[in-house]
Amino acid sequence: MSNYKNIKVIGFDADDTLWVNETYFREAEEAFCTLLSEYETPNKLDQELFKMEMANLELYGYGVKAFTLSMVQAALELSNYNISNKKLEQVLNIGKTMLNKPVELLDGVEEVLKTLSKKYKLILATKGDLLDQERKLEKSGLTSYFHHIEVLSDKKETNYSKLLNHLDVKPQQFLMVGNSLKSDVLPLANLKAHAIHVPFHTTWAHELVTEKETNGKEYKTISSLKELLNLLD
Amino acid sequence: MSNYKNIKVIGFDADDTLWVNETYFREAEEAFCTLLSEYETPNKLDQELFKMEMANLELYGYGVKAFTLSMVQAALELSNYNISNKKLEQVLNIGKTMLNKPVELLDGVEEVLKTLSKKYKLILATKGDLLDQERKLEKSGLTSYFHHIEVLSDKKETNYSKLLNHLDVKPQQFLMVGNSLKSDVLPLANLKAHAIHVPFHTTWAHELVTEKETNGKEYKTISSLKELLNLLD
Repeated sequence: MSNYKNIKVIGFDADDTLWVNETYFREAEEAFCTLLSEYETPNKLDQELFKMEMANLELYGYGVKAFTLSMVQAALELSNYNISNKKLEQVLNIGKTMLNKPVELLDGVEEVLKTLSKKYKLILATKGDLLDQERKLEKSGLTSYFHHIEVLSDKKETNYSKLLNHLDVKPQQFLMVGNSLKSDVLPLANLKAHAIHVPFHTTWAHELVTEKETNGKEYKTISSLKELLNLLD
Repeated sequence: MSNYKNIKVIGFDADDTLWVNETYFREAEEAFCTLLSEYETPNKLDQELFKMEMANLELYGYGVKAFTLSMVQAALELSNYNISNKKLEQVLNIGKTMLNKPVELLDGVEEVLKTLSKKYKLILATKGDLLDQERKLEKSGLTSYFHHIEVLSDKKETNYSKLLNHLDVKPQQFLMVGNSLKSDVLPLANLKAHAIHVPFHTTWAHELVTEKETNGKEYKTISSLKELLNLLD
């Protein structure tokens, strides 16, 4: 069982941990499939868009701009280069709509951050576009609870190692809280840092992990962020 | 005259300070103008692309992905929605080519960083895409000289204030070195931090400043990064 008494810094994932995000990507994918419905079934379009995102991941990274560029490329290819310019403009607009979405906080977020920020240094540790994440933090009204925002290009062990180094804390002094086993939990468990998993109802296919990957790894799962207060306060 | 003896941390801009960047944007703009040459004069295309970038700046921010999305939108509008799908694919490829460019170090960079890293904490302070900038730093072979990389969503006074706070240094302890008066020099001069300007031969229109803006501001201009060694070592 984890011993939380040495923790000095808590990292919070943002998307789908503090506020709704994956839901907006699902809506965008649906809009994309509707736009291209004359060319393929929704199922095929969805699969091919995901493949395009994965093919571009190394070059484009995460976030809405990368996703929009992949949608444009997928629209060209899936229509066999027949899609109209007006529909392509709508593809761009799907991306812009995502960037302009309001921030919808998940249950209990403000109370938890307010309480924990009195005892711990809190940081926001997220991947995606820096500008977009800063904008969401601003809209969220949560800025004052965080020491600062760390946008990571990816959330693998090596990224977290650099982060701990940069924060000047030992693994045992750091707790990461997030909805993704792959990005917020397992890399920290491997580094012998603390990790708490708070599942969100929807998980992006890229973030799914197998039972084998979680087997024997030390982390805690809670069903609501509010349970953090019982564990840490 | 500036007194550099209190400096603890030196921030280096990356693009066009350590390595070539603006040149690649100019090449991309030329490729864009060639692709759309049947619709408008190069001069008009160039102007309209710049306007599109400015119109999207608040939403998309800086960097190659933002630039590529603006090129796609500009191509649709400037062709009056007549551009072919194949040409739009080429527009996407202009962006991908930029992301895959090799890193070409400017004169004396390695020597300067190697020497200064022994005496100061060096950080890379840049705007643009985090992933792209991390990739360029990796390709540059300069990683070991920097304590870490800071990607800022913009380089205004408020961004630098947060950075100094995050670095836990006073303005007099921080020196910023970069090629852009607007982004690397004037905000620091306003914060009473140190700033040294190293001009690059090409400056993006968005980064140009008027004489009025520089009037009375305290900063030093050097013609080559190597001159830093005389000032600081």
